[in-house]
Amino acid sequence: MAINSGSDPMRFSASIKVVLKDGVLDPQGETIGRALKDLGFESIVSASSGRIFRLDIDAETEAQARKIAGEAASKLLANPVIERYEVEMAK
Amino acid sequence: MAINSGSDPMRFSASIKVVLKDGVLDPQGETIGRALKDLGFESIVSASSGRIFRLDIDAETEAQARKIAGEAASKLLANPVIERYEVEMAK
Repeated sequence: MAINSGSDPMRFSASIKVVLKDGVLDPQGETIGRALKDLGFESIVSASSGRIFRLDIDAETEAQARKIAGEAASKLLANPVIERYEVEMAK
Repeated sequence: MAINSGSDPMRFSASIKVVLKDGVLDPQGETIGRALKDLGFESIVSASSGRIFRLDIDAETEAQARKIAGEAASKLLANPVIERYEVEMAK
């Protein structure tokens, strides 16, 4: 039994950005780009869209929290066939 | 007429994060949090979700590109009643 078993974990906040992989069609982004042009935003050349998740995670270390966030992203939050994700830790 | 009129604009990339304001119910985030618990992620305390947009903008200066991104966010991308947005410039 490790000497620090039962130590209080810290709370970390992870931000997970999920976006379409390059080359995957993005009809939502294209629609937004067209809508912006129709609203008069001529200088906006292109638009793409994605999702962002914030997870509050109890863990011993930031590295452990980041690992948990990555597992959550690959198992539930992102579709690995068409999407890629980035994990950023806050604080 | 300004001496630099007709100068080539530069291309900027803006990332716009749209999240629910504090206190607004987030059923999608709650569902994700529950699903993560069901998958065995006991250490994930809470989850919230939002959207992220990337806009490529032609502008003379980064400040001008940021202004355009903010206007696009408030006019089309975010619902100011329940959402807030953050603009970040890349590069």
